[in-house]
Amino acid sequence: MVLYFIGLGLSSPEDISVRGLKAVQKCERVYLEAYTSILMAASKEDLEQLYGREVILADRELVESGSEQILENAQNVDVAFLVVGDPFGATTHTDLIIRARELGIPVETIHNASVMNAVGACGLQLYNFGQTVSLVFFMDNWKPSSFYDRIKENRDIGLHTLVLLDIKVKEQSFENMARGRKIYEPPRYMNIETAASQLLEIEDMRQQSAYTRDTPCVSISRLGSPQQKFVAGTLADMAELESGEPLHSLVILGHRTHEMEVEYLLEFAEDKEAFKVAVNKEVEAARLAQIAAAEEEEDDD
Amino acid sequence: MVLYFIGLGLSSPEDISVRGLKAVQKCERVYLEAYTSILMAASKEDLEQLYGREVILADRELVESGSEQILENAQNVDVAFLVVGDPFGATTHTDLIIRARELGIPVETIHNASVMNAVGACGLQLYNFGQTVSLVFFMDNWKPSSFYDRIKENRDIGLHTLVLLDIKVKEQSFENMARGRKIYEPPRYMNIETAASQLLEIEDMRQQSAYTRDTPCVSISRLGSPQQKFVAGTLADMAELESGEPLHSLVILGHRTHEMEVEYLLEFAEDKEAFKVAVNKEVEAARLAQIAAAEEEEDDD
Repeated sequence: MVLYFIGLGLSSPEDISVRGLKAVQKCERVYLEAYTSILMAASKEDLEQLYGREVILADRELVESGSEQILENAQNVDVAFLVVGDPFGATTHTDLIIRARELGIPVETIHNASVMNAVGACGLQLYNFGQTVSLVFFMDNWKPSSFYDRIKENRDIGLHTLVLLDIKVKEQSFENMARGRKIYEPPRYMNIETAASQLLEIEDMRQQSAYTRDTPCVSISRLGSPQQKFVAGTLADMAELESGEPLHSLVILGHRTHEMEVEYLLEFAEDKEAFKVAVNKEVEAARLAQIAAAEEEEDDD
Repeated sequence: MVLYFIGLGLSSPEDISVRGLKAVQKCERVYLEAYTSILMAASKEDLEQLYGREVILADRELVESGSEQILENAQNVDVAFLVVGDPFGATTHTDLIIRARELGIPVETIHNASVMNAVGACGLQLYNFGQTVSLVFFMDNWKPSSFYDRIKENRDIGLHTLVLLDIKVKEQSFENMARGRKIYEPPRYMNIETAASQLLEIEDMRQQSAYTRDTPCVSISRLGSPQQKFVAGTLADMAELESGEPLHSLVILGHRTHEMEVEYLLEFAEDKEAFKVAVNKEVEAARLAQIAAAEEEEDDD
């Protein structure tokens, strides 16, 4: 039979496609990947009612170490693996598909919206985005910052960066992990304020001007839900935001920002004039840097 | 009332979300944007049957010059504007939203999958993609190649590039346009062979090694449909492909390609060994270039 990978989209149970719903309803077992994202406006029970099927929550442990359970007997019965957003957002799932292939289980993907394309709703053109980066919760002695070089690469060529914010679901404390106690911490979702503060902390450490406190940004909150909210402002503004309920992502603008993008964003700026000034400042700085680079090249000749 | 922007997803009428379908079914007028993409496995009639509503095909002329017709009376009745993929794929639609805003018409977006996120199905990680580019049909005296610099920017930092291929629907010939005759050419959809040949033609002209005949690529054909097909090979292989029915996109790999990405792609390579060699050659060339750059920097100090 078939192992279905089905994207659930962004928010409500009914964001699933008609084709996806029909597939789930005929599956014998239905797993929901519940550790890289959450469906904002839906509980397990809401989904079960819509599908007429029991939904098994698949945590990281089950997917990464226990994929045998998911794939069990999928040669003979239909199985669904549901993923919030689109099934091809996270590495783990291609891994599961490779294992299914090895077992000769046919795989069918039913796509859906994810933050990777729906972020266009803020008015920035998807063509103007560079690579996407992830930002994890810092700890006192662990502040991974490889995102910094990636953002710099994007911004050096004028592109926007989508920053995905950390989600901690069913995580153990170091102590509980060390003692083998299966006690889990309450879920945590990074908000815009924390993200902006962490970004500024790394800029202060690295000082390569990947971005500054004045860099224009857009906060993306609860994308695709009725409570969706975008705020346009500087990175310093973002550090002071009250972004509220999850989920959140952040976009750092690049200097190639088009006039029409700015026009659309102004709707979301608390101080429209200040936002325009911030954008123009970066555009102008990039223009001067290009002139300087061109002159230096001439001197070299 | 509400102006709904509804994404139809990639292929079949039932790729619309349950929420999207419910919204269309209560709209008084339903427009389908029919010039930047096509729904592969559906006719206007299929959609009308599923929706229980007449579907009005909106060509470029209607959307760009006649948006008044679309927005007419949308303060008082629900109107749907359907877009293949996600509504935020093309510039034109943000324009329509801005006009609706100005008229005080509430806008609601219902997202869906588009090539921008579903391309992950080929096994390449979305995180490793740089900016997306578009490739238009060349004419004898018109060969726009701004994509070349964009691909070079992506590849210089090791990123993959999604190349979207031209679609010509309801285009007039120069002669008919000049004479004001509303006679339209048959629709044309760029295939992989043409795209690869045009890319190679520009590399031959520009000679800045943005890519070569040996650069690893993946063809993306009929994404999200039952006839979906991926082929992994070099750009020279792509120029010889028989990619068949539309729609197509092409991915040009970057040297940051991860082992797991390659493992997944091998399934789609006709000559697996040759494909591995092509990938490794680029990875090695990038490594040597980095060493050389670091040495040069040292000499400068």
